[in-house]
Amino acid sequence: MRLFSSVNDVTDINALVAEGLELKKNPYAHQHLGKNKTLGLVFLNPSLRTRMSTQKAALNLGMNVMVLNVDKEGWALELRDNVVMNGTTVEHIREAAAVMGQYVDILGVRSFPGLKNREEDYTEVIFNKFVEYCGVPVVSLESATRHPLQSLADLISIEELKTRPRPKVVLTWAPHIKPLPQAVPNSFAEWMCKADVDFVITHPAGYELSTEFTQGATITHNQDEAIADADFIYVKNWSAYEPYGQIFGENNDWMLTNDRLKITNNAKVMHCLPVRRDLELSSEILDGPNSIVVHEAGNRVWAAQAVLKQMLEQLQ
Amino acid sequence: MRLFSSVNDVTDINALVAEGLELKKNPYAHQHLGKNKTLGLVFLNPSLRTRMSTQKAALNLGMNVMVLNVDKEGWALELRDNVVMNGTTVEHIREAAAVMGQYVDILGVRSFPGLKNREEDYTEVIFNKFVEYCGVPVVSLESATRHPLQSLADLISIEELKTRPRPKVVLTWAPHIKPLPQAVPNSFAEWMCKADVDFVITHPAGYELSTEFTQGATITHNQDEAIADADFIYVKNWSAYEPYGQIFGENNDWMLTNDRLKITNNAKVMHCLPVRRDLELSSEILDGPNSIVVHEAGNRVWAAQAVLKQMLEQLQ
Amino acid sequence: MRLFSSVNDVTDINALVAEGLELKKNPYAHQHLGKNKTLGLVFLNPSLRTRMSTQKAALNLGMNVMVLNVDKEGWALELRDNVVMNGTTVEHIREAAAVMGQYVDILGVRSFPGLKNREEDYTEVIFNKFVEYCGVPVVSLESATRHPLQSLADLISIEELKTRPRPKVVLTWAPHIKPLPQAVPNSFAEWMCKADVDFVITHPAGYELSTEFTQGATITHNQDEAIADADFIYVKNWSAYEPYGQIFGENNDWMLTNDRLKITNNAKVMHCLPVRRDLELSSEILDGPNSIVVHEAGNRVWAAQAVLKQMLEQLQ
Repeated sequence: MRLFSSVNDVTDINALVAEGLELKKNPYAHQHLGKNKTLGLVFLNPSLRTRMSTQKAALNLGMNVMVLNVDKEGWALELRDNVVMNGTTVEHIREAAAVMGQYVDILGVRSFPGLKNREEDYTEVIFNKFVEYCGVPVVSLESATRHPLQSLADLISIEELKTRPRPKVVLTWAPHIKPLPQAVPNSFAEWMCKADVDFVITHPAGYELSTEFTQGATITHNQDEAIADADFIYVKNWSAYEPYGQIFGENNDWMLTNDRLKITNNAKVMHCLPVRRDLELSSEILDGPNSIVVHEAGNRVWAAQAVLKQMLEQLQ
Repeated sequence: MRLFSSVNDVTDINALVAEGLELKKNPYAHQHLGKNKTLGLVFLNPSLRTRMSTQKAALNLGMNVMVLNVDKEGWALELRDNVVMNGTTVEHIREAAAVMGQYVDILGVRSFPGLKNREEDYTEVIFNKFVEYCGVPVVSLESATRHPLQSLADLISIEELKTRPRPKVVLTWAPHIKPLPQAVPNSFAEWMCKADVDFVITHPAGYELSTEFTQGATITHNQDEAIADADFIYVKNWSAYEPYGQIFGENNDWMLTNDRLKITNNAKVMHCLPVRRDLELSSEILDGPNSIVVHEAGNRVWAAQAVLKQMLEQLQ
Repeated sequence: MRLFSSVNDVTDINALVAEGLELKKNPYAHQHLGKNKTLGLVFLNPSLRTRMSTQKAALNLGMNVMVLNVDKEGWALELRDNVVMNGTTVEHIREAAAVMGQYVDILGVRSFPGLKNREEDYTEVIFNKFVEYCGVPVVSLESATRHPLQSLADLISIEELKTRPRPKVVLTWAPHIKPLPQAVPNSFAEWMCKADVDFVITHPAGYELSTEFTQGATITHNQDEAIADADFIYVKNWSAYEPYGQIFGENNDWMLTNDRLKITNNAKVMHCLPVRRDLELSSEILDGPNSIVVHEAGNRVWAAQAVLKQMLEQLQ
């Protein structure tokens, strides 16, 4: 694997999940692969789970890690071609990415969408330029439209904790106070559509995701209908794809509570975190037996380690 | 040891000091203990000595280290329970701490007091929530009311440099321009009260520390009387415990000079650093033979290494 | 080597270049030298290439690395002696540097000039105080007047890519929108004056560098004359040495294009990066076959590794 940015970069998702679970049992068995190999982690946006879990995964594999907070330790990057750089940007992404590629064996890149210009975000301008110019394998640490390490960790968690062969998995929209990217729901949807699960998406009218990610999913505006008999409920807010980046009203009744879980198959409740308590998801669920959000975050290590291992194997 | 937040977490302080001095002689003898173990260092406030010395201690023990500057690389944490998170905080400490615990074997936490609400500070709201929710052993990197790695390093320095079996140790208040926490003096006091020293505290009227930390110490408002025949003088500013966080006048005559040292037993002068020259402590002392402030800072490594070693031994 | 701040700290620059090229072939052959040794990197200003390449060099040598962003993770340092520190600075560089020296075996320091006070900048007040007080070997990561790791990497690149024994090397001023330090051109000039090359400096009238760095160079205000038959052209903007830190007009015709390269000996074009495209240097050159700027950045690793290796050898 030379690129991990979406489910489409993975030949066999079940094999990758199995690899993650195997690494969870034997985290340190492959340190020869990472010896004298360096992972660079470039953050254009804040990060806690991704920052720590990807570092840990690399260390487990015997790699060195260098972290670069571009906005804080570096400088503003120019993304556009054919402009005279006489403004505030001090380095073009062409040079910056190419130079980073000189110092690392694998590059991880985090870059959120601006939520202003859909075409710019959905063509992954920033992330793809890093891929194009850096010259080394690239792992997405969440880009404008996808968060594949999160989705792989989610699938690992489902595989680990499912109680029937083909579980019902529901992605439900949740309330928030400001417009959030579609990266996590897009990504979760495209992974679930390829996984061995019954997959349902539910959200208020107006929050339809791009059909690019949802082929094969059942989609409904009726949350109760969606979560009935569910084994896993994935809770997440997102803003509209059309009109892009907008939000419509509060929809506070979309927040799940224990009472709402009664119609599920004792569903495990998932969230990528960070979660706003009692706005996106009730404290009673987060503090109760149905929540697996911390377990899920823990699995981020094995997701990252499975991906890095496959990349390292190809670098040998 | 699963918690290192105060002198009360230590069974035998003399044994811990001896361990620190032994590690200073053989820093790299225990790298098997730290192999594949990870220390997370979480900073909610700035740090130089603690950041570097604790990293170095962990590296000496063969550990990996991940540093997280929460305020700069992460996001604002919610500390209160039972609030709808529709404001500026984006993640609750319950989730943040629990998630960090998934990625590290030992967590170090730095969190200063607000100096506004004494009850909040003195119940160690932030630090204790990290302890409660992270699920792994925790080392204080300075909390609202204590700085135990500093105090252990101070005791190591006294043990190393004392010229009589039971030295006289004086904690003296020093001038400053703004209100500082009581964490360092509280902590120094509680360690000295348990150590094999004659311990005296001196400060202007109004700067009494909480008696919780000073049981057994001699307390006087007369600085000359306090430092007479002293072997070690620990210089530090702090604001009042009552009324909380207040300061009263300048008291610039409380700054020590070489002339004032004449009545001491050629006292060694200590400070936790950073120190404001010629405000808290005179340049002539800092640049002269009596100052051991840099030596003391160097001993922070062995203090941290002794604590981490004991924690690692229990993790095996 | 205990200090690497200028070409004058190097006994034999050809041997150091040869060492760099040897390390490029065998990066991991000397990891015994760095075992249990720690490099501290202190940044008072932003950094991308220096940050990453120096870390990589240290890791290649088996060292541990601790990075400290003083302005962001630490606090404001006092540089002046004999002042009462009752203002905004919280720690004196005397203590800060001495303490850092307690935790590391080699210290790297980056500190840009203020461009306000020439004497202050050209006496290297900040950098020299780190050297004076830290007590360990120091590597410049770019100081007020020099950037020696860059210049060594530049010389390595010239040695690697030259097509005749004594190539013609030209340092040319380039346009910019704001005043930049003279550190890179000063440093490049003093290294080239000692290297086995024909060295020419060209710039608009008024941008004369201090003669301290340019002894032996040919200096002309005619760019065409300078670059005729050149093998290497080093492109860089700088502000005036006299009156200090000033700029005079735009001089946009000083930006090189492919057309201008026709009179050269198919010159390789160099730049230390970051470069402002189509202001300092044309995109057509940067994206074309004559640019070696990324290659040059890659060689920063071997420059740093050669210097660190010599320092480590003296520490054994």
